[in-house]
Amino acid sequence: MARVLKLTLAYEGTAYVGWQRQAEGVSIQGLLEEALARLDGAPVVVHGAGRTDAGVHALGQVASARVATTREPAVIRRALNAMLPGDVRVLSVEEAPEGFHARFSAAGKAYEYRIWQGDVQPPFARAWTWHVPRFLDTEAMDRSVRHLEGTHDFSAFQSSGSGVRSAVRTVTRARTETRDLPPDLTGWPEGGAGPGGRLIVVTLDADGFLRHMVRAVVGTLVEVGEGRRPERSLALLLEARERAASGPTAPPCGLVLVRVRYPAVRR
Amino acid sequence: MARVLKLTLAYEGTAYVGWQRQAEGVSIQGLLEEALARLDGAPVVVHGAGRTDAGVHALGQVASARVATTREPAVIRRALNAMLPGDVRVLSVEEAPEGFHARFSAAGKAYEYRIWQGDVQPPFARAWTWHVPRFLDTEAMDRSVRHLEGTHDFSAFQSSGSGVRSAVRTVTRARTETRDLPPDLTGWPEGGAGPGGRLIVVTLDADGFLRHMVRAVVGTLVEVGEGRRPERSLALLLEARERAASGPTAPPCGLVLVRVRYPAVRR
Repeated sequence: MARVLKLTLAYEGTAYVGWQRQAEGVSIQGLLEEALARLDGAPVVVHGAGRTDAGVHALGQVASARVATTREPAVIRRALNAMLPGDVRVLSVEEAPEGFHARFSAAGKAYEYRIWQGDVQPPFARAWTWHVPRFLDTEAMDRSVRHLEGTHDFSAFQSSGSGVRSAVRTVTRARTETRDLPPDLTGWPEGGAGPGGRLIVVTLDADGFLRHMVRAVVGTLVEVGEGRRPERSLALLLEARERAASGPTAPPCGLVLVRVRYPAVRR
Repeated sequence: MARVLKLTLAYEGTAYVGWQRQAEGVSIQGLLEEALARLDGAPVVVHGAGRTDAGVHALGQVASARVATTREPAVIRRALNAMLPGDVRVLSVEEAPEGFHARFSAAGKAYEYRIWQGDVQPPFARAWTWHVPRFLDTEAMDRSVRHLEGTHDFSAFQSSGSGVRSAVRTVTRARTETRDLPPDLTGWPEGGAGPGGRLIVVTLDADGFLRHMVRAVVGTLVEVGEGRRPERSLALLLEARERAASGPTAPPCGLVLVRVRYPAVRR
């Protein structure tokens, strides 16, 4: 009487080797598999929608697992959260149809990359933002990143050694936006005293992502924001398909898997 | 040509033994004194407005120091931030009048205590909130905490061994408020999917604080919020002056020193 569960997860990735189980170090997948195995009394394999790298975070990672336990989803959620460390949380547990696979069933995913632009990075935002002290022209970055929307070969934004056959992906939404952090996090009133700064959020929504794709896009975009590359740079890079021509890979701490999309369930 | 500097600091206290230098462990005061000593080429003593305990945070701690360096305040701020770890930030450096002392010159301080009330504590809010899963009646907590406003003997909310002569303090503002966290931190849209929850913030503004005073008040208030104590409880405790009659001390992780007030400078 095995059944399939869909788990939605949030985690701060700072302390982990990434989603995927590794020979060394603690992975999110490994933690979840251990916790589910304790519930089931037998080994459990967990599949994740996005294989987030070491130090990358999630607010809406989705995982699937075939389990034997007959407990209610809400009971399983509480039991898992009682076993997992506080920086890994199960937000929801749902019954999934037979054959549901977090990665293969996914229609798309959305990542956000958060930059703190300002002289001083607020300590409470340190774990999940990349600190860029210099001014960035976010309007130029927004115009630039929109060139990625559509179906393109993203070879210019792919790390080598990923072993993927095709680098063609469809980006349904690409944006650069700015947001203020609430005073709860900065301590200084909006528009008031304090060293100032703002949150710059780059969002990419796509049917799939290549290895380090968002971080390579952001590393290039920041050079656009600094005025060191033209806005058209991202369009030209798509045509050139050369990783060496794009910018450096932005650090993992700013990257967050925010959402996984699934097709509406057929009835 | 020594001069006095006023430094405003933010820090996440999780990793530290507290503000004050200790025989063992790393303190914020110690880090700041080391960094200033490197600038000055000689030992520097730093005084802090609030001696925050181990694990307690600050968004507006103020420190004073007598230094020899003739560098501009903004240059000193940048130099200090380059030397300090990322969870301790200098927000501003200002020239202070001769005789300025962060603690003795202070007219008052404001602390906030943040509670995350909800089934699941968001990982990005874990470092600076206390997780209380059960429902809390925040309106009762607000009516209750307001009893503390005015000049009272706060013996009922003082930890022993502090060696302070008088437990009389004047609280100018006491409030319990609720706030939403932005989706940047929770991942779930406001009012939408996700396990839900809210930030409950208890604010105390006073001319001075006793040892563990805010945490003892919050531990008691949470029992009011749970319906285990009457709203009048805090008023009765002020009269009784017995620490044993009040609630447990809330954990340090939710406490933040948000502001230090100084009298307007006389000219």
